[in-house]
Amino acid sequence: MPTRSDFDYVEETLPEPADGEILVKVLYISLDPAMRGWMNEGRSYVPPIGIGEVFRAGAVGKVLESKNPKFAAGDFVSGLFGVQEYALSDGRGVTPANPALAPLPVYLSVLGMPGMTAYFGLLDVAELKDGDTVVVSGAAGAVGSVVGQIAKIKGCRVVGIAGGQEKCDFIVKELGFDAAIDYKSENVRAGLKEKCPDRVNVYFDNVGGEILDAVLTRLARGARIALCGAVSQYNNQDGMKGPSNYMALLVDRARMQGFLVFDYADRYMEAAMEMGGWMAEGRLKSTEDIVEGLETFPDTLLKLFRGENLGKLMIKVAGE
Amino acid sequence: MPTRSDFDYVEETLPEPADGEILVKVLYISLDPAMRGWMNEGRSYVPPIGIGEVFRAGAVGKVLESKNPKFAAGDFVSGLFGVQEYALSDGRGVTPANPALAPLPVYLSVLGMPGMTAYFGLLDVAELKDGDTVVVSGAAGAVGSVVGQIAKIKGCRVVGIAGGQEKCDFIVKELGFDAAIDYKSENVRAGLKEKCPDRVNVYFDNVGGEILDAVLTRLARGARIALCGAVSQYNNQDGMKGPSNYMALLVDRARMQGFLVFDYADRYMEAAMEMGGWMAEGRLKSTEDIVEGLETFPDTLLKLFRGENLGKLMIKVAGE
Repeated sequence: MPTRSDFDYVEETLPEPADGEILVKVLYISLDPAMRGWMNEGRSYVPPIGIGEVFRAGAVGKVLESKNPKFAAGDFVSGLFGVQEYALSDGRGVTPANPALAPLPVYLSVLGMPGMTAYFGLLDVAELKDGDTVVVSGAAGAVGSVVGQIAKIKGCRVVGIAGGQEKCDFIVKELGFDAAIDYKSENVRAGLKEKCPDRVNVYFDNVGGEILDAVLTRLARGARIALCGAVSQYNNQDGMKGPSNYMALLVDRARMQGFLVFDYADRYMEAAMEMGGWMAEGRLKSTEDIVEGLETFPDTLLKLFRGENLGKLMIKVAGE
Repeated sequence: MPTRSDFDYVEETLPEPADGEILVKVLYISLDPAMRGWMNEGRSYVPPIGIGEVFRAGAVGKVLESKNPKFAAGDFVSGLFGVQEYALSDGRGVTPANPALAPLPVYLSVLGMPGMTAYFGLLDVAELKDGDTVVVSGAAGAVGSVVGQIAKIKGCRVVGIAGGQEKCDFIVKELGFDAAIDYKSENVRAGLKEKCPDRVNVYFDNVGGEILDAVLTRLARGARIALCGAVSQYNNQDGMKGPSNYMALLVDRARMQGFLVFDYADRYMEAAMEMGGWMAEGRLKSTEDIVEGLETFPDTLLKLFRGENLGKLMIKVAGE
């Protein structure tokens, strides 16, 4: 587990944007399970965060000053601005965020990476089909809550796995999941047997570990597992636990496929349009768990690994 | 590990075929790693072999007597005749074996289940593409030896993982693999790094365990793992070892997919025609490891789990 002493606060003079750059006042910072991986050395899909570097983070902010023709002072924007109050950016990977269309936090939630991850992971990687039984872990989290809602919109049976009664009530009563399994108080394997009578066609995995192994025992023939994360394993002292029931993939002619949302960047707009439409119709809810104060970052990050967040966890740095 | 005392020999009077049945004299019996799984209780893709039942096995034999219009006395046939000298069959799943086209053992090897498994696993499940680097474990075995040869025919770079110098020499010098890694004397991870400079696009896994974990560290982006077996794990006392590096599937946007050859039954003929053509052209070799005597079955079966066979392991029960 990361501790407070792994982080350092530094004050610097506000920089001046150079030609092509913008200066952004950061308003909301996204907190993601993937951040834990970025703190490890070694090969991954992005380089680790170097010691002394600004901690990488998606954020929404307001342009204070622009020397980039694509942006004007006063624009709201989303980008990898990092865990800081003000950010300089050359504009690459920065997209507009229109508060008239959706509240700014939604651009870090359903209309941000978590929403895109849910959308492409479920529809593209797991190839969701009519009538599928869909199971999602981390079901009350930023990605899981969207996965389940999209699957419901598409007419599937959806069972969410989450920790605690509050989260389980939330996904069933507020988000419309068909059933929930509380892994903290229930036997997951027994829960899956009861709540997935026709077995599991799609499993969207955010957690890995024992829950992945339990779902593997309950796959339907031709099942698809979209591998999104393994938050139960990121802080393991003795390495990752592999899924010991993985040979169920053979018995059930099933597949497990990893993906990274960045590969779908050229289709974000398509997903945002469709999900924006569902939100406007009241069929898709964005849930945010907003903590105030940049200085809370090290502690707020731990909420993810303790499973204490409901919906998308973020920090509010400043008012609009 | 199975022991001699898990098996029983029984003599019975030769039965008479009823209407629709054939009586077959068994000539060659196929020995397969999957047999170990059939000895376990629990859900799988076929029911376990019950205590007291004839041990399930693919075989080639000669029809002695036929009351089925599809077969005549004297026909050579392939089917699930079991570990016995004579078999009764209702003809379901029984296919002709023509010794004029290929020697009878080939119908249990390249033109039998191992060949079909290699063909569909590589071309269909792993979706082999031009220029792929292909790694196969159990590379000198019945399936692996065919996988590597097909990949070479398709113009790919092929690296085989096998146990011992003899097998490694065999797959490179006799079968034309580009390189071999001897897992008994080499570090597999280092071997993969050296012999797969462009990483691994396709991994055909017959063994699971440590070797699967090593290959996972060396995947190329978009890699496909065809999950065919896990022979290193079938006799584990403390359960299967899951692949602890499975999150490489996410980092490398890769997938791991299980399959069973029986699902391709309606395409066996297509595969047999193509592979038969390659054999006729001398581009594909069938390798058999033939042990004499039905009574050797319990010991011969262990050769598979000790990795002592070269090519397709079978027992010759009787002469033609």
